[in-house]
Amino acid sequence: MKKSLIALAVMAAAGAASAQSSVTLFGIVDANISYQRTSGGEKNTFLANSGYNSSRLGFRGTEDLGGGLSASFWLEGALANDVGFGGSQATGFDFRRRSTVSLAGGWGEVRLGRDYVPTFWNMTVFDPFGTNGVGSNIGHKVKLDGGTAATAGGIVDPAYVRSNNMVQYFLPANLGGFYGQISYAFDETPNTAAGQQNAGRYIGGRLGFASGPFNVAAAYGQTDGQETFASPDVKNWNIGGQWDFGMAKLLGVYDRASYESVGVDNDLDTWLIGGLIPVGAGEIRLSYGRSKLDTAGGDPRTSQWALGYVHNLSKRTALYATYAHVSNKDGANISVGSSLQNRVAGLTNASSSGFDLGIRHSF
Amino acid sequence: MKKSLIALAVMAAAGAASAQSSVTLFGIVDANISYQRTSGGEKNTFLANSGYNSSRLGFRGTEDLGGGLSASFWLEGALANDVGFGGSQATGFDFRRRSTVSLAGGWGEVRLGRDYVPTFWNMTVFDPFGTNGVGSNIGHKVKLDGGTAATAGGIVDPAYVRSNNMVQYFLPANLGGFYGQISYAFDETPNTAAGQQNAGRYIGGRLGFASGPFNVAAAYGQTDGQETFASPDVKNWNIGGQWDFGMAKLLGVYDRASYESVGVDNDLDTWLIGGLIPVGAGEIRLSYGRSKLDTAGGDPRTSQWALGYVHNLSKRTALYATYAHVSNKDGANISVGSSLQNRVAGLTNASSSGFDLGIRHSF
Amino acid sequence: MKKSLIALAVMAAAGAASAQSSVTLFGIVDANISYQRTSGGEKNTFLANSGYNSSRLGFRGTEDLGGGLSASFWLEGALANDVGFGGSQATGFDFRRRSTVSLAGGWGEVRLGRDYVPTFWNMTVFDPFGTNGVGSNIGHKVKLDGGTAATAGGIVDPAYVRSNNMVQYFLPANLGGFYGQISYAFDETPNTAAGQQNAGRYIGGRLGFASGPFNVAAAYGQTDGQETFASPDVKNWNIGGQWDFGMAKLLGVYDRASYESVGVDNDLDTWLIGGLIPVGAGEIRLSYGRSKLDTAGGDPRTSQWALGYVHNLSKRTALYATYAHVSNKDGANISVGSSLQNRVAGLTNASSSGFDLGIRHSF
Repeated sequence: MKKSLIALAVMAAAGAASAQSSVTLFGIVDANISYQRTSGGEKNTFLANSGYNSSRLGFRGTEDLGGGLSASFWLEGALANDVGFGGSQATGFDFRRRSTVSLAGGWGEVRLGRDYVPTFWNMTVFDPFGTNGVGSNIGHKVKLDGGTAATAGGIVDPAYVRSNNMVQYFLPANLGGFYGQISYAFDETPNTAAGQQNAGRYIGGRLGFASGPFNVAAAYGQTDGQETFASPDVKNWNIGGQWDFGMAKLLGVYDRASYESVGVDNDLDTWLIGGLIPVGAGEIRLSYGRSKLDTAGGDPRTSQWALGYVHNLSKRTALYATYAHVSNKDGANISVGSSLQNRVAGLTNASSSGFDLGIRHSF
Repeated sequence: MKKSLIALAVMAAAGAASAQSSVTLFGIVDANISYQRTSGGEKNTFLANSGYNSSRLGFRGTEDLGGGLSASFWLEGALANDVGFGGSQATGFDFRRRSTVSLAGGWGEVRLGRDYVPTFWNMTVFDPFGTNGVGSNIGHKVKLDGGTAATAGGIVDPAYVRSNNMVQYFLPANLGGFYGQISYAFDETPNTAAGQQNAGRYIGGRLGFASGPFNVAAAYGQTDGQETFASPDVKNWNIGGQWDFGMAKLLGVYDRASYESVGVDNDLDTWLIGGLIPVGAGEIRLSYGRSKLDTAGGDPRTSQWALGYVHNLSKRTALYATYAHVSNKDGANISVGSSLQNRVAGLTNASSSGFDLGIRHSF
Repeated sequence: MKKSLIALAVMAAAGAASAQSSVTLFGIVDANISYQRTSGGEKNTFLANSGYNSSRLGFRGTEDLGGGLSASFWLEGALANDVGFGGSQATGFDFRRRSTVSLAGGWGEVRLGRDYVPTFWNMTVFDPFGTNGVGSNIGHKVKLDGGTAATAGGIVDPAYVRSNNMVQYFLPANLGGFYGQISYAFDETPNTAAGQQNAGRYIGGRLGFASGPFNVAAAYGQTDGQETFASPDVKNWNIGGQWDFGMAKLLGVYDRASYESVGVDNDLDTWLIGGLIPVGAGEIRLSYGRSKLDTAGGDPRTSQWALGYVHNLSKRTALYATYAHVSNKDGANISVGSSLQNRVAGLTNASSSGFDLGIRHSF
């Protein structure tokens, strides 16, 4: 997800004394033709977005405050460029991918606003398909979709990918390979509210170590719900890693999430292993993953394998093709489509397969 | 619709090896005072947008990939600058005017995403008023408005102006004056859906020839509906042209659209002729047009004449004034207003007239 | 509210003959942790936006047309950067802060579009806290909130801050210290509408004088309602001023608004006095204000005092802390929170206090 920069000379309105800083306009427009079908007979072809990288438009910048201190902002919104809307298929453009303001120094960074939660980083960084397109991490599909409430327990984690209202601290870059963050989101629920007074509160953290070809990270996060079936307490931890052998990169991630409420005690286990193999100007991508949801009514299971190829026309522009096959059993009903908008319906105990053919252009 | 450019040096994040490319921020803010009245007694004055050119804000860019190949993106959204919203009067900003990513070479251009459909190009390019303001092509008003369902057949063509989910191919520029495109939009309706399984599918194309003072183009498009009264199958073709005599430019367009469904078989014929006469730094614009809707319950007819003047203060900024008069008979009820938001109500068999006085500023 | 500029070389598409002009991308991201509590027992902590300056993103530009004439545009939208949405907490980004196009010369400026109304300028310019955060002008909180309909009369002034559809004239800058504007917004209600046919029409103006350390301005505005309880006619005037003593700046504003309709005749009086005291790279801010709503059912009264400190890390970036205490009596129920989203509930005759700790970064 390299992004090209527009470096702009910024002159403070009040004059020449201010330090040179930069504001960057950046984005990705990714479109693909996605053909998908299920063993239940449904077939469909879509013009979809974000098959390789998530389509986006953003503005960000950093100001050097002197003495090692800097302030920065980041405003980034999703693009459903197949239909011209913002993040979902039916709403305008917003900055729900990230909207933050930060103060950073040698001691690290304090960041305020909406952003990814710690656990999501492992789900996407250690997935060869980056949680995008038909090849996306099967755990990602299960979590986004939630499955049918009747059979799969109606998993709902509002802070699976991002959270509003966060205060985060990030470790500085110079810790000999260690990196990490702690993240807290205010629940903003009044203490006088009936029921769960912390509903919406998120607490999480991530710690990783990267050195040479090696990178591993573990993360934990929990969200307080409203203690109802549809809004359980969620506890989530995962661990992921990769090893770059030069001729190939091996990746893997294991994720466990618990959903607890009155009469609900579901556990979702999901893992994947995958690889990235450089081939000339391109890269072969492959993964295999499984998920199991432990519920009182049964243990729906899903597995997936995916194979893809990315051909880089330049650093900014790539063509890609991905094939994936999803199998459901024991009541699972996950579709091969990674987007709620552009996918065939998930059918109980059915399999589905999909093929993305697309272009990713970044700026 | 000339647009000024902000040429920005783009440096790929990964370094100096990348070719110099550009990202452009562009837009138009067009506002006018529009006074309109009907023979039914209604009078109203509006602050309206887009009386001369459609207000918009956009980002676009092109990357030279070498070997004659290039990748580009185009994100453009409408502005209702009288009220500060996006395209409609009540929603946020989005990129529903155009959101596409393209790959182009000597063989032409493949473009993916939301864009104009082929037939709309003839409606707007060969209208002296560019389908904007009270002078807008009368066929445009009929199609946007649809008329009263009871009397005019409830015309609904969701792909009259643009379509989601398109794959388009455009001819290259070097064909001795010939230009053209074919456009296909996926229906994205499941094959297992009850009723019309291709509802939403669009197929169209356009072929033109421009040489010296001469420009002519024909286009065809069809949209599959849901086989209901409100969602008929639509077939649309048109032909338009212009001849530049130097002292004046003569323009004309004929458009025919058929709306077919269970118990519905309506045909809309519309044509206009017009002219553009350069006068110093300005231009006189005039047009006359008629429409007839052939329905089982009667054949509502509308006619319009329009006269305007545009005074260019610069290439980017113009003042304009437009007057138009619309007559309805045989059950037609089309208003002189070209926008669904800022117009007097269309009354059956009534006439209406309107006057726009405004400013168009582009950047 | 200093804004840094991105000065971009703009080249008109048609070539080199055009004058050099500029387009500016600008914005503010302001986030704070806001702790608030009421004497009723409610406590809450929020990540809030706009505690010092209103978060925003905008595009503006000016074109020199020669002969002292210039055209300009201004598109600016609010950011709820704590949650990534636009102006409100639940909608996409739009340009509802300001979306205007202007023509200006030695005779002044004509401006078309959505903008602040004249009276709001005095409410915000002469408030040490700029109508932002827990220290915001108490009159601002009363007007935004409206209070409980049953006790406080359900104040609703849709044009309290801004209005759609305005035509405005501004005096030129060279009048020896005098400045001013007149503003008119079309009602856009059909003359054939039942009831109040001018509902939505706004008329207002402002006249000020600034010279050396002295600045004073008076403003008046009125909005036609629908002659219902929820949509009264509103008349509003105010006067504000400041005197810069060097070691401190003294500010004050008095505002009176009348809300009239069938069976409704409420008057709101509000005033504040405050000061700004420079301290090194920072500034101490303080204010005291009161409001009284004169209604048939009682005269709810609210008072507030506020104290804050702003520490400038640079011209663009500041840290700030603000404390405020609000007291209600005689049926008033105004909360200390200045935002409808991030505040404790306003309780009748209760007091509340709040503390903002935040960062403002502009670009």
